[in-house]
Amino acid sequence: MANQEDIFKKVISHAKEYGYVFQSSEIYDGLSAVYDYGQNGAELKKNIREYWWKAMVQLNENIVGIDAAIFMHPTTWKASGHVDAFNDPLIDNKDSKKRYRADVLVEDHVAKIEAKIEKEIKKAAKRFGDSFDKEQFLSTNQRVLDYQAKADAILKRMGKSLENEDLTDVKALIEELEIACPLSGSKNWTDVKQFNLMFGTKLGASADTATDLYLRPETAQGIFVNFLNVQKTGRMKIPFGIAQTGKAFRNEIVARQFIFRMREFEQMEMQYFIKPGTQKEWYETWKEKRMQWHLSLGMGADNYRFHDHEKLAHYADAAADIEFRFPFGFKELEGIHSRTDFDLANHEKYSGKKLQYFDPEENKSYVPYVLETSIGLDRMFLAVFSNSLQDEELENGSTRTVLKLPAVLAPNKVAVLPLLKRDGLPEIAEKLVDELKWDFNVDYDEKDAVGRRYRRQDAAGTPFCVTIDHQTLEDDTVTIRHRDTMEQKRVKLAEVKEIIHKEVDMRYWLQKL
Amino acid sequence: MANQEDIFKKVISHAKEYGYVFQSSEIYDGLSAVYDYGQNGAELKKNIREYWWKAMVQLNENIVGIDAAIFMHPTTWKASGHVDAFNDPLIDNKDSKKRYRADVLVEDHVAKIEAKIEKEIKKAAKRFGDSFDKEQFLSTNQRVLDYQAKADAILKRMGKSLENEDLTDVKALIEELEIACPLSGSKNWTDVKQFNLMFGTKLGASADTATDLYLRPETAQGIFVNFLNVQKTGRMKIPFGIAQTGKAFRNEIVARQFIFRMREFEQMEMQYFIKPGTQKEWYETWKEKRMQWHLSLGMGADNYRFHDHEKLAHYADAAADIEFRFPFGFKELEGIHSRTDFDLANHEKYSGKKLQYFDPEENKSYVPYVLETSIGLDRMFLAVFSNSLQDEELENGSTRTVLKLPAVLAPNKVAVLPLLKRDGLPEIAEKLVDELKWDFNVDYDEKDAVGRRYRRQDAAGTPFCVTIDHQTLEDDTVTIRHRDTMEQKRVKLAEVKEIIHKEVDMRYWLQKL
Repeated sequence: MANQEDIFKKVISHAKEYGYVFQSSEIYDGLSAVYDYGQNGAELKKNIREYWWKAMVQLNENIVGIDAAIFMHPTTWKASGHVDAFNDPLIDNKDSKKRYRADVLVEDHVAKIEAKIEKEIKKAAKRFGDSFDKEQFLSTNQRVLDYQAKADAILKRMGKSLENEDLTDVKALIEELEIACPLSGSKNWTDVKQFNLMFGTKLGASADTATDLYLRPETAQGIFVNFLNVQKTGRMKIPFGIAQTGKAFRNEIVARQFIFRMREFEQMEMQYFIKPGTQKEWYETWKEKRMQWHLSLGMGADNYRFHDHEKLAHYADAAADIEFRFPFGFKELEGIHSRTDFDLANHEKYSGKKLQYFDPEENKSYVPYVLETSIGLDRMFLAVFSNSLQDEELENGSTRTVLKLPAVLAPNKVAVLPLLKRDGLPEIAEKLVDELKWDFNVDYDEKDAVGRRYRRQDAAGTPFCVTIDHQTLEDDTVTIRHRDTMEQKRVKLAEVKEIIHKEVDMRYWLQKL
Repeated sequence: MANQEDIFKKVISHAKEYGYVFQSSEIYDGLSAVYDYGQNGAELKKNIREYWWKAMVQLNENIVGIDAAIFMHPTTWKASGHVDAFNDPLIDNKDSKKRYRADVLVEDHVAKIEAKIEKEIKKAAKRFGDSFDKEQFLSTNQRVLDYQAKADAILKRMGKSLENEDLTDVKALIEELEIACPLSGSKNWTDVKQFNLMFGTKLGASADTATDLYLRPETAQGIFVNFLNVQKTGRMKIPFGIAQTGKAFRNEIVARQFIFRMREFEQMEMQYFIKPGTQKEWYETWKEKRMQWHLSLGMGADNYRFHDHEKLAHYADAAADIEFRFPFGFKELEGIHSRTDFDLANHEKYSGKKLQYFDPEENKSYVPYVLETSIGLDRMFLAVFSNSLQDEELENGSTRTVLKLPAVLAPNKVAVLPLLKRDGLPEIAEKLVDELKWDFNVDYDEKDAVGRRYRRQDAAGTPFCVTIDHQTLEDDTVTIRHRDTMEQKRVKLAEVKEIIHKEVDMRYWLQKL
């Protein structure tokens, strides 16, 4: 079996080869941690966005969408806490002049200790063979216990220091652990400093009148500042939600893992405005609802898990992640946060405007509490794409590469293939394309042997191939081939559209919710 | 009849009142020339984007979409000419310290001259009554001819000076015309300087390693730098197109006219890659195709006109605008540009990478020529919204405000209204909503008298209202009311969905293309 790193490399190269994801500005040797979506990627991304929007906005009478600008008034980010608290601790090596995230240096050091544990496990497994009990080994082997205790102690100390903003101790920790610059091997470090992750820019022409702006680091604030406008003009009653998809930007120092952590990325966020005191109940409801949305795609329940946060962000009174099994392990895919009235109350404070809701049932006004669901569109893309890419051994011993995207999300729903480039078969195929293209993204392919075309469509993720052959000329039937099963069925030409609709329409997938 | 300015004010206030467009960060007193789309605006914008995407990408087998990042390698903007040539000429008033676009100061001066002509026309029309012939008056009245000659001479001189980058003469012109600062009345001006319109930001943490980035001022370059990746991985053959929608940013000094000219805006661009020498033919084809797209929305052929550019941008060998009749006159809505090989050839030069296409028919490689169609999504939104907003006098003498959006673009397709809040009518209505919401955005409204609810839906732009009344209980029929005609028809409950589909599905609208 291929290891995680090899699988991930394959994901990245397949994404490029089949027009899903390109490195940004590749002809200029790329831009770090920024990616472009190609002809298939743009459609997959669009379909994921639409699947979310339909489930969240269209199907919920009490949730509406907005589309706020990336630029916002700079005071927004004071109120939200981003100006003061959205920082990474950075440290420079004096010899190499390279800059690092101090916490990542420590984490990488801990990863080395954990690698030693893995090594011990492997050694023991080899020695004891079938009788090896990993759990028992971990809990009794003194060397492993020592490693584990050391790793835990380091992380605990760092967590505490960061929480208390004791950056002197973070530096002390790096020096005590004798962490060296990966580039130069030098242990000659500067102090640790906080660095704000927001991208800045200037609005206006002249130096003296220009306004310092930030590119929004999250879409949520665009919802909060518009809360009252939407509530009033939309005559919304609590509980109600406002949803939004859009770009956000973070000047990550350590941006890595392909499109998992990018400097420019897209969020799909929903803020649910509720009566104070009901947040526990809505927190549980939305955790469940969002998990159901993920499961509706049929990518396997064992690929998801909840991770409840013990350490909470400054704005939250409860928070959980939905984690997904990425090629590099279980990682956060979506967050569900009980944000209390933190944001609205702060916007009240900074703007001097009342942001209250008059509750006709309670006959009083209050600042609503907020329950947030926040998912990264690019992460969702990576989850779907990496989970779908499979090498399958066939009965004849050969291997096929197949991208088993949920049909509802696939960029092209169907490929129409004339068996041969003559005898009128292309004409029938093109006529079918002309009919199907009103409803679906359709590919037409007449080049190479049909088996090779099937493989190409498998690798590109197209769920259905319709082949026009000589029998079509006689009885108006075609074969329809399923990507996942490779099964071929003979069906009437006139039925093709309806068959595909049943398999790819969002309705049939979302009804599982 | 209301004048243009009043109509425009009504557009802006209606857009706010019905949840279409809010001022950005309104609680912080706004951010100049930036707007947010509310719950109805977000849907209208999304529908326009989708109508474009379907027509351009889904229906054309040889056009594919991409989704490139806003951040691009900075050399991109050297190659495109934006670093050197994407400037506005600015001038400061030394007394008020206010900064102006020099060309706009001159244009405003010319507008005053033109206002004088208008005044002469009005005076003469009053004097001559029915026998007034405007054309004849304009061509014979000496005072008018003098004004016109003066205005023309000023604009010609400024055009020439800007073209030759003779900023000294632009300043001289301002001084000769004795143009004063609108704020202070002072004529004490600085020199005219060029100011680049791109927003800058910095990628990376440390000052010495940070990269100076720009927020893209157009989406087109994201297509050019990905041209070869898309062509190769998508096996595209010339002629083929790459389409993209997305945000672009321009640090406009004079940003005005609501969402017509914003600092952050969204473009819908398509670059069509063609054989050199065929550009004239494709230019005509795409002018025609794009006009047909606009006309398919049924907003009236007389609201559109072509404007062929005489003065061409540095990258073009032919260019035309599709102009639309906005509340403030005919203005550019979309541009069709024959860009030659300007962009690809420059990217070759700056990147050192070949950006050529091997033409199997010609058996040789070449840098393709490019035909571009470029439309502003926000402008299209303003065109649709302002054209649809109408005050209609009814037979009974009252007035109704109705937003006659093309049904295919309307945010909510249908509102379901129980006549009364009892007798089981709401239950039937809600059941209908539950069925319709899988296919459409549906509104449910049970508050106030039904007439008032109709008015509300008229003003919000909902094309259909379905009313459940007591007869529904007896024979399963409902009334369906058309927004534009106010006609009500009794139909079977079970037929409602199909009736609406026929009126709102993109297919039926796009088939007019």
